[in-house]
Amino acid sequence: MTPVPDRHLFGPGPSNPYPAATSALAAPLLGHLDPIFLDIMDSACDGLRSVFGTNNRRTLPLSATGSAGMEAAFVNLVHPGDVVVVGVNGLFGQRMVEVATRCGAEVVAVEHEWGTPIDPDRIAAAHPNPAIIAVVHAETSTGVRSDLAAIAAVKGDALLVADTVTSIAGIELRCDDWGVDVAYAGTQKCLGVAPGLAPFTINERAFARRVVDPRSWYLDLGLLGGYVGEAGRSKQRTYHHTAPTALVASLEAALDVILSEGLEQVWARHGEAGTILQDGLQEMGLELFAAEGHRLPELTTVTVPDGVDSAAVRSYLLQRHNLEIGAGAGESAATVWRIGLMGHNARPDRALLVLAALQDALANA
Amino acid sequence: MTPVPDRHLFGPGPSNPYPAATSALAAPLLGHLDPIFLDIMDSACDGLRSVFGTNNRRTLPLSATGSAGMEAAFVNLVHPGDVVVVGVNGLFGQRMVEVATRCGAEVVAVEHEWGTPIDPDRIAAAHPNPAIIAVVHAETSTGVRSDLAAIAAVKGDALLVADTVTSIAGIELRCDDWGVDVAYAGTQKCLGVAPGLAPFTINERAFARRVVDPRSWYLDLGLLGGYVGEAGRSKQRTYHHTAPTALVASLEAALDVILSEGLEQVWARHGEAGTILQDGLQEMGLELFAAEGHRLPELTTVTVPDGVDSAAVRSYLLQRHNLEIGAGAGESAATVWRIGLMGHNARPDRALLVLAALQDALANA
Repeated sequence: MTPVPDRHLFGPGPSNPYPAATSALAAPLLGHLDPIFLDIMDSACDGLRSVFGTNNRRTLPLSATGSAGMEAAFVNLVHPGDVVVVGVNGLFGQRMVEVATRCGAEVVAVEHEWGTPIDPDRIAAAHPNPAIIAVVHAETSTGVRSDLAAIAAVKGDALLVADTVTSIAGIELRCDDWGVDVAYAGTQKCLGVAPGLAPFTINERAFARRVVDPRSWYLDLGLLGGYVGEAGRSKQRTYHHTAPTALVASLEAALDVILSEGLEQVWARHGEAGTILQDGLQEMGLELFAAEGHRLPELTTVTVPDGVDSAAVRSYLLQRHNLEIGAGAGESAATVWRIGLMGHNARPDRALLVLAALQDALANA
Repeated sequence: MTPVPDRHLFGPGPSNPYPAATSALAAPLLGHLDPIFLDIMDSACDGLRSVFGTNNRRTLPLSATGSAGMEAAFVNLVHPGDVVVVGVNGLFGQRMVEVATRCGAEVVAVEHEWGTPIDPDRIAAAHPNPAIIAVVHAETSTGVRSDLAAIAAVKGDALLVADTVTSIAGIELRCDDWGVDVAYAGTQKCLGVAPGLAPFTINERAFARRVVDPRSWYLDLGLLGGYVGEAGRSKQRTYHHTAPTALVASLEAALDVILSEGLEQVWARHGEAGTILQDGLQEMGLELFAAEGHRLPELTTVTVPDGVDSAAVRSYLLQRHNLEIGAGAGESAATVWRIGLMGHNARPDRALLVLAALQDALANA
């Protein structure tokens, strides 16, 4: 067993879990059919409804990482030749194009400059009658928030699929109020749980239009409806696959922490930590990458200053301070840093620590 | 957070993890790009090679449960219209038929009576030139072991895909020596880790015949080759998805325990515990379901005696003794119990405990 240091996980995810989530992970394991586990699953699904801002009964943690949530959305919704309009303003929008294409969609990619948000007018103008419109709410590759409500307002008859991997439980998210039909997420960011699950929600309108017997058995929402109980209650569940019981228990514990604190308070905490960090970075003379007015508080992107070796700074932070920040993603890999203050890490002390450590690294790396 | 009792997990899985696996799960979380995590991933992949009995460089834990391993095998190997011969002697053989069909295969299902092993001669006679032959090594639904080496001996030019979910790290498994081209497993049985990963291995011969750009992006082995490093070393890895770092660390810890004990000793330990249990059950006058000579030591199937309420006994065991055994699966749901002594639970004391508790339940439930 490899010895493990205690890192500050201030990259784009995973972040340090809420302590209660870690405790739950190491609690005695339960069987996936144990009545107590079924209660935990029900409670986790209820909690997910709260953080997604939905009443959808089909709301559950898929047994794979966030990327599988994206795949589940498209594999269950794309009928051969369906037009899917994808707003692309970063790596995860690009991935949507790739995944939807493999599912047989005719994809219309609406490319935006990285660092800017999705423009609802351009989405509306992209195609007269798409089956699906898909966008990333919080682009993990650029640190940009797009306006889901404004995009939903122009969706017409299309289904709106939203990637909420980096927004859920970090910034305002109201799937039902805004008109999001399908959303997926990951657990390792603002939810404050280890990676390994993909929270997922789908409303009745989208479920009615789904592909019956889709190509994927593992991600078939028709079967997974049974997995968590058709009525959204797991006690009526039918066996589909062995649920990852430890991760689900950990998710339930984290959701309990989040909802006990209060979701709006949790959003405010992310907002405060992000503001301290972003103000501090600018005071240090650094330039933020994401467009002003559209910056995520939970994930800050910084332009690497001219003459500074991005990798050397990250390596110094890791070795000297056990502190991880992220490189950029895709086309901005070497020119941007990504700093996440997510979930349990969304606190003023963490913001001060990042600033101090980065100052040290820029002077000494 | 729902309080959790300390259960004896003696069903068909999950089983109680090795204590070191639980400790690793709760150790400080690492980022998925952390150099120390990459070492852990490399070490876990090395350990998986040992328990699969393979030198395949493409050996890795997929980031989903065992059923996704099955899906990965077929989605990457089945070209449209390929003939896939599936040996069916239980629920998981049936599932192979379903999953391969969704992947576009022309499936030839070779049905066997439940409780009996796959007959290599019937597999050989099923089709003159199949692209793939697929069988379950240890049928979790019936407690039966099939002879993979004998099946491999008749595969001809076909690829042999083996479900080793319930055999890996419990009974003899030698993929390379026997001629298994692709195998997948789960972590929650004899590997002694919480559910959530699907160990997977594929040899060069099978990889060369794979589907390029398969329908699934998440399970695309071409991309996942990069994920663990094309050379089987993660330091050359390219980003695909966020690895479930806690589960991978837990898997590495369990593999370390298993390989430190010695794989053949671990198999012997499973054999001994299974023998004590199966002898004891028969001494109690109970009838074993699986055919003699083909019984798995790690998973014992028992015929529920006439007049005994299967569910009442299981419920009594759970409530009185915090002890879980499994119902039957599929067609034998109400008529069979499944008792697993897997991984950390494959020990004589656990065998004695099950026998004593079952005796109590039969008298008092």
